[in-house]
Amino acid sequence: MLGGEGHSDPWVKAVDWFLIAMVVLNVLAVVLESVEHLSIAHGPVFHAFDLFSVMVFSLEYLLRLWTAVELEDRRFHHPLAGRLRWMISPMALIDLLAVLPFYLGMFVQLDLRAIRVLRVLRVFKLGRYSMAMSVMVSVARQETRAIGAVLFVMLVVLIFTSSLMYLFEHRAQPHVFSDIPTAMWWSVVTLTTLGYGDMVPITPMGRMLGGLTAILGVGMIALPTGVLASGFSEQIRLRREEYREAVARALEDGAISRRQRRRLDEARLHLGLSEDEAASILEQAVNHPDHCPHCGGLIHHMDGS
Amino acid sequence: MLGGEGHSDPWVKAVDWFLIAMVVLNVLAVVLESVEHLSIAHGPVFHAFDLFSVMVFSLEYLLRLWTAVELEDRRFHHPLAGRLRWMISPMALIDLLAVLPFYLGMFVQLDLRAIRVLRVLRVFKLGRYSMAMSVMVSVARQETRAIGAVLFVMLVVLIFTSSLMYLFEHRAQPHVFSDIPTAMWWSVVTLTTLGYGDMVPITPMGRMLGGLTAILGVGMIALPTGVLASGFSEQIRLRREEYREAVARALEDGAISRRQRRRLDEARLHLGLSEDEAASILEQAVNHPDHCPHCGGLIHHMDGS
Amino acid sequence: MLGGEGHSDPWVKAVDWFLIAMVVLNVLAVVLESVEHLSIAHGPVFHAFDLFSVMVFSLEYLLRLWTAVELEDRRFHHPLAGRLRWMISPMALIDLLAVLPFYLGMFVQLDLRAIRVLRVLRVFKLGRYSMAMSVMVSVARQETRAIGAVLFVMLVVLIFTSSLMYLFEHRAQPHVFSDIPTAMWWSVVTLTTLGYGDMVPITPMGRMLGGLTAILGVGMIALPTGVLASGFSEQIRLRREEYREAVARALEDGAISRRQRRRLDEARLHLGLSEDEAASILEQAVNHPDHCPHCGGLIHHMDGS
Amino acid sequence: MLGGEGHSDPWVKAVDWFLIAMVVLNVLAVVLESVEHLSIAHGPVFHAFDLFSVMVFSLEYLLRLWTAVELEDRRFHHPLAGRLRWMISPMALIDLLAVLPFYLGMFVQLDLRAIRVLRVLRVFKLGRYSMAMSVMVSVARQETRAIGAVLFVMLVVLIFTSSLMYLFEHRAQPHVFSDIPTAMWWSVVTLTTLGYGDMVPITPMGRMLGGLTAILGVGMIALPTGVLASGFSEQIRLRREEYREAVARALEDGAISRRQRRRLDEARLHLGLSEDEAASILEQAVNHPDHCPHCGGLIHHMDGS
Repeated sequence: MLGGEGHSDPWVKAVDWFLIAMVVLNVLAVVLESVEHLSIAHGPVFHAFDLFSVMVFSLEYLLRLWTAVELEDRRFHHPLAGRLRWMISPMALIDLLAVLPFYLGMFVQLDLRAIRVLRVLRVFKLGRYSMAMSVMVSVARQETRAIGAVLFVMLVVLIFTSSLMYLFEHRAQPHVFSDIPTAMWWSVVTLTTLGYGDMVPITPMGRMLGGLTAILGVGMIALPTGVLASGFSEQIRLRREEYREAVARALEDGAISRRQRRRLDEARLHLGLSEDEAASILEQAVNHPDHCPHCGGLIHHMDGS
Repeated sequence: MLGGEGHSDPWVKAVDWFLIAMVVLNVLAVVLESVEHLSIAHGPVFHAFDLFSVMVFSLEYLLRLWTAVELEDRRFHHPLAGRLRWMISPMALIDLLAVLPFYLGMFVQLDLRAIRVLRVLRVFKLGRYSMAMSVMVSVARQETRAIGAVLFVMLVVLIFTSSLMYLFEHRAQPHVFSDIPTAMWWSVVTLTTLGYGDMVPITPMGRMLGGLTAILGVGMIALPTGVLASGFSEQIRLRREEYREAVARALEDGAISRRQRRRLDEARLHLGLSEDEAASILEQAVNHPDHCPHCGGLIHHMDGS
Repeated sequence: MLGGEGHSDPWVKAVDWFLIAMVVLNVLAVVLESVEHLSIAHGPVFHAFDLFSVMVFSLEYLLRLWTAVELEDRRFHHPLAGRLRWMISPMALIDLLAVLPFYLGMFVQLDLRAIRVLRVLRVFKLGRYSMAMSVMVSVARQETRAIGAVLFVMLVVLIFTSSLMYLFEHRAQPHVFSDIPTAMWWSVVTLTTLGYGDMVPITPMGRMLGGLTAILGVGMIALPTGVLASGFSEQIRLRREEYREAVARALEDGAISRRQRRRLDEARLHLGLSEDEAASILEQAVNHPDHCPHCGGLIHHMDGS
Repeated sequence: MLGGEGHSDPWVKAVDWFLIAMVVLNVLAVVLESVEHLSIAHGPVFHAFDLFSVMVFSLEYLLRLWTAVELEDRRFHHPLAGRLRWMISPMALIDLLAVLPFYLGMFVQLDLRAIRVLRVLRVFKLGRYSMAMSVMVSVARQETRAIGAVLFVMLVVLIFTSSLMYLFEHRAQPHVFSDIPTAMWWSVVTLTTLGYGDMVPITPMGRMLGGLTAILGVGMIALPTGVLASGFSEQIRLRREEYREAVARALEDGAISRRQRRRLDEARLHLGLSEDEAASILEQAVNHPDHCPHCGGLIHHMDGS
């Protein structure tokens, strides 16, 4: 699930794995430090490890900033503007957020507990190393508008049901459904079919609305699921098609050279296809050249061949 | 997510955004006014803003009614009948509902709190401005019968499980499962996997039925999700195909004129396709006119053509 | 959603609608009779209506039994064996169950309340009149094995998690997790993500297992949903294909006669397609005869036509 | 759902069914023995049955180990290394786990209750006999990376939301949200939309984060469902295509011999297709050899051929 950024240099890999281990250990430290008896018993250890982590992550940040101009992306090539542009890229902001609370705490009077807990933000640094998430990110990007529409529908339903529920239940349970913002908490808990049970309607009208809200909630789960299911199907189709085209291009001269094979393998990894799937596409293209390179179906040439 | 109705006149856009802001502020006002200490402290402000809103929305309604005859839709062209027909269109009814409670409250003795809360209905006015929801509405329309069937199945299961649960649990918990309508509340809460925990079976038979109901509930979630997932896939396929056909028509004379490009752009917006997707379809049609008739991808003729 | 069995005779339709109304009123009567103050106030009315219902449904059963030999299905054509075979068909058994408790109550000493509540079984008589459910029944039949496998996986997971949870929590909460059958109730409530909260693990090991069970529960919801989603897509594809073939057959002689159009309409209803969808398929087949009648894609004849 | 491993020898089938019955009875025994009054009343019966079961399963294990070299799989053909390799295969490990606790309990001082409950592991022995699960296993294998990515996302979200919730609620409810590991229990319960209600945020910030977590939880359900739904569609498409190719190969000489038909039937069982589906594919291939190369349906040539 995790792995380097495709480098093959063992030193680069070692550094990558060291940084991954540092993040995991940091998260573990934050979680364990919150347990009172552990934080009392091993306070100095936690503190020393945090100091060490901040030093490592600060160094990492500075080195990444320094070498940003040598990244493939052209936007970062300018010595100054490029580095500033890199600083506002999402991954760079996460790297900054991973160390910023520590330095802020030195100058400003901050809630110490908050600083300690916010170190957990470092977990997002792992995003850099995960390859399997590329399909997921693509689906999210592809379906942004649909997901936005789902959230918009959810917000409208949330406002509407909580207002009505306040109207129905406020008189019967004035301390439970005390105002609409509080009723919104009930509404979120119901629309997501969470159902804590801390706020429950008791009037007939309230229960009818509650049942309706719950059924709408099933729809609120079905909508994004439907969107994502069709999004995944689409992404997988697109990626398979792209690989098929790469294979077709490689086959144009009749055979696949070793260099082409290596390129296909890179494409496979990049597209997140399994080896089996890639092999089956390749086999089909080699043995059945009269298949459509896009949908994989056999093309009948009806002119008698 | 929100935006004008495709007008490019900056004045029209400004009015649209003003009305959107009015709706959002109104919803916010209703929510905040329900918080007791806010409504006591700022009562007059809320009241003044409501008066202003009713004036704005009343004016909007009258102007929309007046200009209904100039809409593209032919049904509204008749001076009188057309305007009456417009008045019973869904969006017009929502616009009316947004101001009606205020005027009703002036003549009839109504529950003041209800009038205030019902102003939240104005949130549905936003539906006019959301474009991303067109796919959702199409899916809903396409799957109406399937969704109806799912609701019918849900109702039958609801009646059946609540009656049996009443039979099993009434004697053990006469004050909890007091009658079938009350047991229906349990049934809805269980079938939607909400599980508040305010009514829980305790007899062995009741728990067995409860477990079965919960598993049926998973099916009740799976059914609409399955329907919607296949509905979304279908809608996206249909819309992409429609755009492909529009591109093919535009390409019949070999090139795409500026006017055709503008029309394609309108079709793209209307079909809710992203720019990337449209560009990829266009690129494929232009550069590879010899495309697979099924998936729209390029066919490599390996026999030498 | 409901409707006759495709008959056009107004008398048949009237009888169908009368029987549908009787079933709906019966269900309503059972639900309302369970409310104590209603059953005390209107006891005789409920009783009289039940007597009338039993008479109607008994008559219906006898008439259906009598005319079974005239059904299209050959299996029922034999005067005696055919009628016996009809009696064990699912719909006939439901019709029998709708009246049996009443007659049994006359001979055997039964729990009166159970007899009254079981009248709710009559709701299943509605299944005969619902047309929109045919897609759903087809999907269920098509995916029987997959659904069976899902239930089997669920059962194994249920047994496994409840046994382990009993092991972890029995000592800490001996009265809550008192034995494995009780722990199974917790397991069902967790695996379906119902979460009543009447049984909650409190030990670290128990909570770890609880979290794992909840995540497995998400899988238990995802599995049937995935199965049903792909099942619905498949059914809709199959039905559209079948209609497309019917259209192609009707078009073989170049035009569609009035009789063929009526037949196509019957096929459309039978397949549960919407009018829009059918019209689009028809239009495509008429205007673009060189589309594949199955997948709807354009077929390029590459021999130069 | 259950059945032999495809053997037709009645003796083999009888032994298979005996072993299946033994597993089912064992699981039942474990479940019932946990009920105190049953274990007191029938202790010796349970004990005798357990002894008998261990003997049967031990014998089964030894015989399977002995005959491992005769399995089709080449890896197991070596007399010693093959048997050792078989011992570490998943099914063999399950068989060993089914009896190991008993023998361990004879030598080491173990928690007797744990040994008794762990016998429930024997339920996994049923995996050997279930054929309908092959599609499910294929989907799981095909989507391993996607499921791994979903679990990774879930873990990151879990750590992040529980840390923040600890920050928001610890001061208001120090005994409920006492540390981050405890807050993680809340987070799992919320992300899976379980919602026991044993830990509920009460501060405004906590409730806002709670609502966000619940909505993320809906996404956490939608993600794997979307993955599995597209995975199932894909598997079914692949399997149908594979069968179609097998039919095409069998039809190359114009007719299907009895031997070929038997092979097709084996392929059908292996691919988990229903008889109906297979028959429809076969019928189409035999009667309409001029089929659409994409969907496998007949192409009507309207130009007179």
